Amino acid sequence: MKFIHTSDWHIGRQLHNQSLLDDQRHVLSQIVSLAKTHEVDALIVAGDIYDRSVPPANAVALLDEVLNELIALGIKVIMIAGNHDGHERLGFAARQMQSSGLHIVGPLTAEVSPIHLGSASGDAVFYPLPYAEPATVRQQLDCQVSTHEEAMAELLTQVHQDDSQGLPKVVIAHCFLDGGSESESERPLSIGGADKISPKLFEGFDYTALGHLHGPQYKGTEQIRYSGSILKYSFSEQHQHKSVTLVELAQGETSISLLPIEPLRDVRILEGALDELLAQGVKDPGREDYLMVRLLDKHAILDAMGKLRNVYPNVLHLERTGLMAANEQLAIASDHIKKGELEMFKDFFTQVSGEPMSEAQLELITQTLDELHKGEEGR
Amino acid sequence: MKFIHTSDWHIGRQLHNQSLLDDQRHVLSQIVSLAKTHEVDALIVAGDIYDRSVPPANAVALLDEVLNELIALGIKVIMIAGNHDGHERLGFAARQMQSSGLHIVGPLTAEVSPIHLGSASGDAVFYPLPYAEPATVRQQLDCQVSTHEEAMAELLTQVHQDDSQGLPKVVIAHCFLDGGSESESERPLSIGGADKISPKLFEGFDYTALGHLHGPQYKGTEQIRYSGSILKYSFSEQHQHKSVTLVELAQGETSISLLPIEPLRDVRILEGALDELLAQGVKDPGREDYLMVRLLDKHAILDAMGKLRNVYPNVLHLERTGLMAANEQLAIASDHIKKGELEMFKDFFTQVSGEPMSEAQLELITQTLDELHKGEEGR
Repeated sequence: MKFIHTSDWHIGRQLHNQSLLDDQRHVLSQIVSLAKTHEVDALIVAGDIYDRSVPPANAVALLDEVLNELIALGIKVIMIAGNHDGHERLGFAARQMQSSGLHIVGPLTAEVSPIHLGSASGDAVFYPLPYAEPATVRQQLDCQVSTHEEAMAELLTQVHQDDSQGLPKVVIAHCFLDGGSESESERPLSIGGADKISPKLFEGFDYTALGHLHGPQYKGTEQIRYSGSILKYSFSEQHQHKSVTLVELAQGETSISLLPIEPLRDVRILEGALDELLAQGVKDPGREDYLMVRLLDKHAILDAMGKLRNVYPNVLHLERTGLMAANEQLAIASDHIKKGELEMFKDFFTQVSGEPMSEAQLELITQTLDELHKGEEGR
Repeated sequence: MKFIHTSDWHIGRQLHNQSLLDDQRHVLSQIVSLAKTHEVDALIVAGDIYDRSVPPANAVALLDEVLNELIALGIKVIMIAGNHDGHERLGFAARQMQSSGLHIVGPLTAEVSPIHLGSASGDAVFYPLPYAEPATVRQQLDCQVSTHEEAMAELLTQVHQDDSQGLPKVVIAHCFLDGGSESESERPLSIGGADKISPKLFEGFDYTALGHLHGPQYKGTEQIRYSGSILKYSFSEQHQHKSVTLVELAQGETSISLLPIEPLRDVRILEGALDELLAQGVKDPGREDYLMVRLLDKHAILDAMGKLRNVYPNVLHLERTGLMAANEQLAIASDHIKKGELEMFKDFFTQVSGEPMSEAQLELITQTLDELHKGEEGR
């Protein structure tokens, strides 16, 4: 069994009001080519197919195109809904598509439905777990769970109990593994980290195809893995290398390799003085990339955006870093507040008296602060 | 070949802000039962499946349920997009559903795709023509058409030319036939009647399953037919009887019968004095119907809506016909403006002087008006 694991397509997403549909068409068509070249049996998309629960019509049309190509190649497709997807909408008529080899899992159902896929190189069983809030799991499975971790554990109980007749088990899920690296383009699943799940939950399966985090990475073991998104969806991802994951299951072994995907336009941050950047840009083969520009010039510039766009047509965001210097000093000053009372008082004393505190003075203020804190605790 | 023809489901529609989803579930489940009882081979839905291009999620879930039931019974389903439907959205993954017996035709394609359905009682070929503006037909078929009639004629050329190998031909379309009776709940396809199509275009086919008009009716011949909507979607439809059409094609004959469908709650207009209506209501088995009430009382009534809803919980609209009498007088008065200047002046003269104009006076004003009009024409 050989398959490609990908996720977080976010079809229909915009970057700073710029439609990325052409960029998405470009990489999705590469993924179809990779699937063909590597003769995979299946393509797994681990959630966040669309960017919004109600995707624009041209996003729907693009996904339709991509699926038609894959199915026409005889490649099976399994997709689950992520936290961005509209579960009912995505799952419409899913039952009628199954016989064609297209498996879309929208809303969570009480019973996880294993998908048995056949292949000349060996069969495997896939367990698609669409994204679900703990409250949804509680209601659908009629169980007592209150955290994301408990909810996932409940779902995985079914996967563990299912008899795959010795065939490899592949879990497909959309969640936030504890210790995973975030990007700026993910929408938190819940506030304050309550969405985190221990990677240990997924130990013992032959492979876990995850979606949600946009940087490719694995947690716990190599088989518990995020493929990452297909494009850089924020400037914070400028140094990431996007790819899809090629997975081969044979004789109880899982072999994994990353297949890089090349964007139509890269997403980068450019920093420098205006004249410098304009001079460089003329020779820059990537000058059509999506850019955030940080101008270091300290003086006012008339229509800096217009001037930049003459050379770099896709500047999406401009920061006047040079001009911001004064404001930044303020920001640094505000960092002092985090230093702690003793350090702050030492700074204050030095500034007011012109010299550092003596040992005796330091002892006195430490003691005073301690008493103050005891008083607070007593209350 | 035996099939049910229905159309204009408008799933997700509201009536005066009242969700009709339960009412739609009720009649759709009747349609599934009728299809089962009459052992039909197929169900045809001639457009306006949903009420909006982006239907609410619960509307999508309801359609999914209904289709699952029909397909599980072995009944083939053909649906086309109407003017209310989002064509790309409705047509998503349509190719992957075909092998299950579900045929959804969303966007218009350059080539009409005939659907050959088999049956123990004889096969037939169905030609689904989703609703399309003349501009869309012009672009997709690369032809010169500017009216709805020309556009439909162009599409039907393909249907005529297709060799059905002697099998009956059934056209499925969503359009406005010239002479058809409108209801208030249809959204016009274009302004000023330019959307009308001659029924003659559909002559020569074994059956034409139409959608758009909400009252069941046929035009031209009995085989060119609107099934009508599944519910009364406006109070103007209060006297209509909703049904689906049972069609049987055998030995070159088309037999047609109407199968009535019963709503969960009827849609009616109630007229009378408040006390009368309240007294009647207690014994009215249909007091949960969706009602528009016209109160004939001429005096002010405190919280008339609240009082009515104590007895008739689903009053959706209240008209104070009695109180409106005075306003109506004004409306009648405003009709005078349309009377023409001479008549208006005669009325004015009579009101001011207390007696009608003499012959001489009439002549004078007629002459004056004539001169004024000549002056206007000269400009």
